[in-house]
Amino acid sequence: MKKVEIFKEGKFKDGSMTRLLVHESPYMKVINFNIKAGQMLPLHSHDIEGEVSIAVLSGSGEFLGKDGLTLPAEVGDVLVCAISEPHGVMAKSDLRIMATIAPPI
Amino acid sequence: MKKVEIFKEGKFKDGSMTRLLVHESPYMKVINFNIKAGQMLPLHSHDIEGEVSIAVLSGSGEFLGKDGLTLPAEVGDVLVCAISEPHGVMAKSDLRIMATIAPPI
Repeated sequence: MKKVEIFKEGKFKDGSMTRLLVHESPYMKVINFNIKAGQMLPLHSHDIEGEVSIAVLSGSGEFLGKDGLTLPAEVGDVLVCAISEPHGVMAKSDLRIMATIAPPI
Repeated sequence: MKKVEIFKEGKFKDGSMTRLLVHESPYMKVINFNIKAGQMLPLHSHDIEGEVSIAVLSGSGEFLGKDGLTLPAEVGDVLVCAISEPHGVMAKSDLRIMATIAPPI
């Protein structure tokens, strides 16, 4: 049993988002991204099996999908998609998200 | 790609916590628990392989572990443990958590 305090350990940075590895095991990979207003986790995908969930912990922005799709990303919103499907996040205000990948990449 | 708005769809209820199934697939199961102040997700475990992560989305409480262990559960805190290890959550104020189980039960 372990606990990670994302709001204390995850830092915002000018220039680019930051990435905090919360957990990695044979079962899942959990990553916290801290994305300042105006920064983004660019649209990307991986041609492998599995899914990713992205939960918004604080701040406001947009989830990004293929063909220019955007969906509001507010606190408590969770996006789930195949890892092979293009996904990304854009921050309107300083945004903390938690991504869970299973099986882990 | 699908989005679930936990803060809109997850409801608090007198008498007992509520459970919103966010996602279920061969890769992971994602459940939102909405636990009113004073309610709890009792200490429990399952004798199977895999891990569970529990992220606090809003509110304040305590994570519960074996032998009376308690750890503060604040927004942005994430607990990770084996599904076979006793775990639970107690709400001090109305608490929204997201549990991710991989592989799914």
